Amino acid sequence: MAELKIDIDRLVAELQELSRLSATEPPAITRVLYTEPDLAGRAFVKAKCTSAGLVIREDAIGNLFARWPGSEPNLPAIGTGSHIDAIPHSGMYDGTVGVLGGLEAIRALQSSGLRPRRSIELLLFTSEEPTRFGIGCVGSRAMSGTLSPTALAELRDADGKRLDDVRTEAGYRGSLDTVRLKENHYAFFVELHIEQGPILEREGIAIGAVTAIAAPAALKVTLNGSGGHAGAVLMPQRHDALCAAAEIVLAVETAAKTTGSPDTVATVGICQVHPGAINSIPSSVHLTVDVRDIVLESRDRAFASIQETIQKVSTSRGVQAKVETISTDPPATMAGPIVAAIEAASVDGGFSCKRMVSRAYHDSLFMARLGPTGMIFIPCRNGYSHRPDEYASPEAMKIGVETLAQTLGRLAG
Amino acid sequence: MAELKIDIDRLVAELQELSRLSATEPPAITRVLYTEPDLAGRAFVKAKCTSAGLVIREDAIGNLFARWPGSEPNLPAIGTGSHIDAIPHSGMYDGTVGVLGGLEAIRALQSSGLRPRRSIELLLFTSEEPTRFGIGCVGSRAMSGTLSPTALAELRDADGKRLDDVRTEAGYRGSLDTVRLKENHYAFFVELHIEQGPILEREGIAIGAVTAIAAPAALKVTLNGSGGHAGAVLMPQRHDALCAAAEIVLAVETAAKTTGSPDTVATVGICQVHPGAINSIPSSVHLTVDVRDIVLESRDRAFASIQETIQKVSTSRGVQAKVETISTDPPATMAGPIVAAIEAASVDGGFSCKRMVSRAYHDSLFMARLGPTGMIFIPCRNGYSHRPDEYASPEAMKIGVETLAQTLGRLAG
Repeated sequence: MAELKIDIDRLVAELQELSRLSATEPPAITRVLYTEPDLAGRAFVKAKCTSAGLVIREDAIGNLFARWPGSEPNLPAIGTGSHIDAIPHSGMYDGTVGVLGGLEAIRALQSSGLRPRRSIELLLFTSEEPTRFGIGCVGSRAMSGTLSPTALAELRDADGKRLDDVRTEAGYRGSLDTVRLKENHYAFFVELHIEQGPILEREGIAIGAVTAIAAPAALKVTLNGSGGHAGAVLMPQRHDALCAAAEIVLAVETAAKTTGSPDTVATVGICQVHPGAINSIPSSVHLTVDVRDIVLESRDRAFASIQETIQKVSTSRGVQAKVETISTDPPATMAGPIVAAIEAASVDGGFSCKRMVSRAYHDSLFMARLGPTGMIFIPCRNGYSHRPDEYASPEAMKIGVETLAQTLGRLAG
Repeated sequence: MAELKIDIDRLVAELQELSRLSATEPPAITRVLYTEPDLAGRAFVKAKCTSAGLVIREDAIGNLFARWPGSEPNLPAIGTGSHIDAIPHSGMYDGTVGVLGGLEAIRALQSSGLRPRRSIELLLFTSEEPTRFGIGCVGSRAMSGTLSPTALAELRDADGKRLDDVRTEAGYRGSLDTVRLKENHYAFFVELHIEQGPILEREGIAIGAVTAIAAPAALKVTLNGSGGHAGAVLMPQRHDALCAAAEIVLAVETAAKTTGSPDTVATVGICQVHPGAINSIPSSVHLTVDVRDIVLESRDRAFASIQETIQKVSTSRGVQAKVETISTDPPATMAGPIVAAIEAASVDGGFSCKRMVSRAYHDSLFMARLGPTGMIFIPCRNGYSHRPDEYASPEAMKIGVETLAQTLGRLAG
């Protein structure tokens, strides 16, 4: 393949421009599905894709497809891409590096004079983050048929609004039945992403060739106890929902630490207390539990033990627990030919590369259900992600984009 | 004294009318200092006082004084009253029974043909609840000199707004130096209130003559840990602020249960998690601790043990803890002559009465620093308070108002 020129300054400038489309002041990024910053971010990416001569399509929930047609446009295309939505007060590299970096890879391939047989298509997935509807990877779940059109339509946000209504308000129309793609719609799908963990940085390695994505399972728990005046209700009469929640939070931590697998992680990320006054006993608490492991058995063991604890705590404290399963997805294996292509591209570029697993989930988890899928990781500082000080250096991104471009070029034939 | 006619239907109707001035739908009442419902509630009470021929004064932070002048208006007056502000999603009787019931007592005394020597003055205290500025009894603290004009001006709400600014925006002007009252400004102060506990109802007693108010102590705690992606950061690398908070919540409960005093209560009422996303490790948590007992030593023992635990948890988890003391007030003893007057009024009215302590604090805690103070409790259903199903029956309120009126009449001479 011809020499590839990655314009890293342009990519950095575009990432910075996108970071300003946020509900919070950068570097704290908040870009929630279908809110003003999310729609502005999509418009920004779309404009850049149009400038690069890509052919745009948007589906009924806003998944964006920007295609560079190949010489044999009827062949299944090569997909690449990620997301631009961001959980509250997170960082500016998660997802965006895969979208704008994916675009930069396509532009570099265009400039190199390559004329690929297969089309190369950039994807911007709708709502990889679970912020608004409580479930992550909405776009890729729907695309891969993991989430049915009916279930999709009926997802509800914290205000009780249906996804079907908010996507229409946001300007996305058409039947939800059209979102699902056929199996092997893409010949290959490759996602570039920051590692969101410390391994590459610690080991001084430039490229991670992802072999598997850990399996997430998540619960929504509502605890209903008994409120009252913090001064007047004596301790034996209490059914404090926050005390019950505290036991559960610690049990979640313990469950993750005792599966025997060092890779099990479990987190209570949301804990909302009602009524939330200094002199009022908490009457109800809403919390979420997120459990992951590369090994399905360890994860399921932790998940089951957490659910048992919730029942025990509920009984012992006289606090009613309502438990809903948000998701229990199996792990995904990345396609061997893509892993090999990433490794070959790294060797050619002179970049160190290691095979690794992804502990965070990504749209690739669901794209793998459609066809051969792979992921390229690049280091991020201290492994930090989902926080304002998330950072990937221009050098790291340049290597990532070059490796992605080389991989796409190889796969596109 | 002449026969007293309590118009209980009028009082119930006024309480219901006031309940509709709320940021949440009744019976869930939310009336936060200087917000629209609070200002509307004040205007409502003021209009009723004016109709009753009372002489109105408002001080620089909105404490309302409505005076029925006595035949010897230069003598120190008899005060009665309470508050109308309400914590989020609380009930419609806390405080309001002392304000509108106090007004009804004055109207009954007026109708009886009584011409008291001392003036009788109804008070509506600004912000008995700590909702907005984190500290309770703002009005009575300032009136009694417990809170200096400077400290008062510099109180800040969750948005960082100064009390001095928001009271001006709300229309309350004049120097904060004028809020403090002289010692013995009132000859006696008597507050009517629902018990907010189950004792009177359980024992079938109509009137509680309060002998002491329990001592509250409160902390504001900010825990700063380390955030990150819930999938990517392994358990040993975590400094999860919510896990630290959970240990503290349980330690607060244990501390209250192990002082040896059955009256110690301790509560974490607020627990706010940042960033609050299902797939993000909590990086910081803000919580409050409220500890009370009738016995100062038990309370202080629990309070000290909680502070120790916070330090221990902070160290063991590598989570930084910032601890601020909001208040550590001593308990108050009610004045013997008022307790006796309440008991005598009950006997005259044919109502059962018992001496009891108040576990909740009230403006009377601070009015007791100014001069002789007492409280009349009436039963409330199940002892519930600070929740939408808080309820005092018309019969219970009628007995309370009659006892208050008789007590005020006796004390006014």
